Amino acid sequence: MHITYEEERKLVTGILTAADFPAEDAEIIAKVIAHSDFTGVYSHGLSRLTRYMRQIKAGSLNPRPNFRKVLDTGAVMVFDGDNGSGIVSLNRAYDELLPRAKACGIAMATGRHNANIGCGSYYGWRAAADGMVALVCCNTYAFTSPFGGADRLIGTNPIILGVPAGEAYPIVMDISTTFVAMGKIQAAEREGQSIPDTWAKDYDGAPTTDPAKAFSLSPIAAHKGYGLAVMVDVLSTMFSGACFGSDIGLFSKLEKENTGFCLILIDPAKFMPLGDFKAEVDRYAGMMKNGRRAPGVEEIFLPGEIEYRRFEKMKQTGFEVSEALSKELTELSVTLGAIEAGSDFAGLVARFAEET
Amino acid sequence: MHITYEEERKLVTGILTAADFPAEDAEIIAKVIAHSDFTGVYSHGLSRLTRYMRQIKAGSLNPRPNFRKVLDTGAVMVFDGDNGSGIVSLNRAYDELLPRAKACGIAMATGRHNANIGCGSYYGWRAAADGMVALVCCNTYAFTSPFGGADRLIGTNPIILGVPAGEAYPIVMDISTTFVAMGKIQAAEREGQSIPDTWAKDYDGAPTTDPAKAFSLSPIAAHKGYGLAVMVDVLSTMFSGACFGSDIGLFSKLEKENTGFCLILIDPAKFMPLGDFKAEVDRYAGMMKNGRRAPGVEEIFLPGEIEYRRFEKMKQTGFEVSEALSKELTELSVTLGAIEAGSDFAGLVARFAEET
Repeated sequence: MHITYEEERKLVTGILTAADFPAEDAEIIAKVIAHSDFTGVYSHGLSRLTRYMRQIKAGSLNPRPNFRKVLDTGAVMVFDGDNGSGIVSLNRAYDELLPRAKACGIAMATGRHNANIGCGSYYGWRAAADGMVALVCCNTYAFTSPFGGADRLIGTNPIILGVPAGEAYPIVMDISTTFVAMGKIQAAEREGQSIPDTWAKDYDGAPTTDPAKAFSLSPIAAHKGYGLAVMVDVLSTMFSGACFGSDIGLFSKLEKENTGFCLILIDPAKFMPLGDFKAEVDRYAGMMKNGRRAPGVEEIFLPGEIEYRRFEKMKQTGFEVSEALSKELTELSVTLGAIEAGSDFAGLVARFAEET
Repeated sequence: MHITYEEERKLVTGILTAADFPAEDAEIIAKVIAHSDFTGVYSHGLSRLTRYMRQIKAGSLNPRPNFRKVLDTGAVMVFDGDNGSGIVSLNRAYDELLPRAKACGIAMATGRHNANIGCGSYYGWRAAADGMVALVCCNTYAFTSPFGGADRLIGTNPIILGVPAGEAYPIVMDISTTFVAMGKIQAAEREGQSIPDTWAKDYDGAPTTDPAKAFSLSPIAAHKGYGLAVMVDVLSTMFSGACFGSDIGLFSKLEKENTGFCLILIDPAKFMPLGDFKAEVDRYAGMMKNGRRAPGVEEIFLPGEIEYRRFEKMKQTGFEVSEALSKELTELSVTLGAIEAGSDFAGLVARFAEET
């Protein structure tokens, strides 16, 4: 069934509150989850909730963490997430870093003991809306190997950039440093399809086309993607004390992720009037978009433009929740005692939509 | 013939001084050029000197620029290179940024109106030796297109990381955001070989295997490499006022490059004792190196390790300058009046080796 952006936010807030998250934290996570679904990144949307609940049950995701700042020298800070949601930790780190970046021109926050930060582009959007340039990265559950290696020691390690614009859409890049996510390989396995030999390697470290044999994800561009993933590891873990390599918890065993993040904010207004900066970003975007196009290409997009447009469109049409996911979330809510047994998804959405 | 590291530095310093560079600037450039050859990055070594001379003659490279700081708010600075060597500009920016990064924990310098910064890994080495983490990038002559586009609007836009280590080699990543450099395609053309269809696109923006038809370089990993190249453009040009897109000079016409750079330095010692940081980098390197290896792989390397080892080895063996390059540099030196007509390369090397 279709649900609206506001309905999804209230639904997720309700479910997470029932799962013992403080209301304020639940609202932060709900906003990022709805952002994910409404920009088309379904892997980090409503479909994640069941996994979060399993992690809470296993004791690897702490809904009521003692989030605290462990270092603060002005322009650099370190936060300990106490194995709470990385979404909450990173947003709170952002809250504290923003005035520092405005004061200094550039500032950096890192975090340790966190679970997943959710849909990375959210932080790029947030910075762009605040007139800031953001560089964000985090290490994740280890699913890839060092170049030439076979053990899983490195995560999909995304890199995110957010840049404010004027008339144009903000430039927001959100890329993982592996070709694909493990979910895409599992989907191929379910469909009985083979995978390109660039996507993954088998247990021994050899490229494979059999999704069932895929053990480690291949980095983008061979040694270059490996280098970028190492860069993310360094920025996310070395300054924060977060886990890396074989110290990271195992995804399959629902262990504590214990990963880290790095957030660097730069204030364009320290360099020039913000309007001038945004005008130059607009000019850049126009130059890229108005160039000659390759065969079959109807329009050239800047990084993130497709997601901004999709969000605008989906805010009108709503998000289509699949039958399976509707059922999964309804059952989850019954288990949490958030709604009576026998209820359906429409009832669940209505139940939380009523709340202010 | 073989020349030693010291001989190469003196040779380049001598040639550049003869070409009107101030001695101090010539020494900086010579160090980066020798670094390039002695780490095996021959494309940015001695082979570049002839191009520099042509650029000077064309008025697009200024050997005696009025390098100046145009913005300084403490943690962020902007430099104008007056179209001098980007190598000199970036090194001088580094000199000024280092104490700021040590004071603030993180600091950022950008530059405009610069020519090429030379071998990127040099700056990673420099930071690592200073116990600093460096993120460096620059935009370059435009040889690639936005994703889906056909015009040349984006450079090979390298990303460089430098990380200090203890017992291990420092981690230094230096990657371009295109599959290959144009030089590699021109080499294939000279050899009459075809190129993989992932390397470049023709004038219309379609992939090509014919090096003669290669017009724009393909980014690594499709839209992901495009996103990274845009990130480099934003960091290098938007804060500095450097040129981007179609405003960049044309390589083929020896026009002023007018590109920019971004240097971010982070001080690990603001986060923890430097020794502790280095020990963690060592532990990380060990974890990566000691994992299982893929078939046929004898050793796993950290980014930059191969170049550190090659430098150590080549400092012993010297660098083999080809017949063609020896002749080219000798003729160049005669033209500059640095040595008499009829001299050979050995005489040229000896001429400058004598100087202190």
